[in-house]
Amino acid sequence: MSAEAPHPSLPSAADVAFAQRLADAAGAAIRPHFRRLAGLDLKDDDSPVTVADRAAETAMRGLISEERPDDGVLGEEFDPVAAAGDRLWVLDPIDGTRAFVAGKPTFTTLVALVIAGRPVLGIIDQPFIGERWVGQDGGTTLNGEPITTRRGRGLAAAVISATAPEQFETAADRAAFGRVQRAAASLSWGGDGYAYGLVAAGALDVVVETGLKTFDYCAVAPVVAGAGGIVTDWTGQPLDLDSDGRIVAAGDAALHAQVLNELAG
Amino acid sequence: MSAEAPHPSLPSAADVAFAQRLADAAGAAIRPHFRRLAGLDLKDDDSPVTVADRAAETAMRGLISEERPDDGVLGEEFDPVAAAGDRLWVLDPIDGTRAFVAGKPTFTTLVALVIAGRPVLGIIDQPFIGERWVGQDGGTTLNGEPITTRRGRGLAAAVISATAPEQFETAADRAAFGRVQRAAASLSWGGDGYAYGLVAAGALDVVVETGLKTFDYCAVAPVVAGAGGIVTDWTGQPLDLDSDGRIVAAGDAALHAQVLNELAG
Repeated sequence: MSAEAPHPSLPSAADVAFAQRLADAAGAAIRPHFRRLAGLDLKDDDSPVTVADRAAETAMRGLISEERPDDGVLGEEFDPVAAAGDRLWVLDPIDGTRAFVAGKPTFTTLVALVIAGRPVLGIIDQPFIGERWVGQDGGTTLNGEPITTRRGRGLAAAVISATAPEQFETAADRAAFGRVQRAAASLSWGGDGYAYGLVAAGALDVVVETGLKTFDYCAVAPVVAGAGGIVTDWTGQPLDLDSDGRIVAAGDAALHAQVLNELAG
Repeated sequence: MSAEAPHPSLPSAADVAFAQRLADAAGAAIRPHFRRLAGLDLKDDDSPVTVADRAAETAMRGLISEERPDDGVLGEEFDPVAAAGDRLWVLDPIDGTRAFVAGKPTFTTLVALVIAGRPVLGIIDQPFIGERWVGQDGGTTLNGEPITTRRGRGLAAAVISATAPEQFETAADRAAFGRVQRAAASLSWGGDGYAYGLVAAGALDVVVETGLKTFDYCAVAPVVAGAGGIVTDWTGQPLDLDSDGRIVAAGDAALHAQVLNELAG
């Protein structure tokens, strides 16, 4: 193996560049529809959010089928494409649909490359503001600048975020999240995938959520981990394609352990 | 009275220009502190959010005392300044403190001019993204472009927003908001004053909140009303300096009436 060829279980520089072209294509498809919702009917397949979602995923799938025909695709909007090997692109064209529909610029496009079942490259892209996180084992950047999580802060001083209280559907989940909320310094609601970028950037300490789908969490894991943080399920297990969608992200391992402890009760 | 002089109960063009300079000064004071929270202690008066809040209000108060010495000031951070006449500037340097602290770009600076007890000019300014709403009786602009609310949509098709479930402190308030939530098409959490700008821009249909202070709501009322929407308290009364902080904003009057009806139960 030459010096230029990375281990096949890690993304190559070409993979990183290609993933950014996927995010570019998604953003170009989405931007014309944002805040142009005069005809919005959320139950209508022709609603602008659905049109934008499908246009963005179609654009990304087109690039993959042309340039990476052996790679598989798992996306929110259309059927999976089986891989010839062990490489899978996991796509969420519009993460944060409710934020998008409300005109809030915290929706994102999520792009992940999963190799042999492990998310190894993640992009969180906000095409209205123009913010892009790119994360992998070697590090995470925000608009090209290296970023790191905030370290050494205990839960009592931590700023936490969750997208919506409705995520915590059971009494046990509400009680578990309530323990984390009461132990933390400040809670901000809303954020979806964007909030994980804020953990990577050291602006936010913790995100706790439930109910995430594979395409919601695969991209955020390498972004947070590459910046020095940690993302697992609520039991502390690393995320893979079959995780249960109960996610804890934190800026450092000690804080992450504190949150897991509060969740366990 | 010359043709150039508006009725004294309305803001002059000079007032509008001056209000924008206040927002400029606040943004310049705030931007260096956003997402630079390494030393954040929420209970510490030296925390970056408190430093930014005070620096922004100090900058705005300085301009007012120099150039509008007869006008009064009501701001979040410092003692009120009494007016010689009936003109009062109402300032919230950082609305959405929890969003700011979490690194979310939906905090805003709110500037209102209140004449004879009525909010007649409002600015909602987001200095990180670079979005500014300016509203008055003659109309509302977003970054200089005229905007209007979305009209003719019933609550069953409406997109609504509220900042945090913790705002609804009593069982009665939670039940009232729950009726609105169940009747609407989509709810997005988070947003603070920024969400009222989205109602004005026609991206969002309804905001329902409680617990707002005078400096939280005075600026948003002219922004929404100038774009063709309506903002009142939960009983349908127009907002003044002594409103109880229970706010309903909607894109049109019929939808607003529907929301009031659900809140009343």
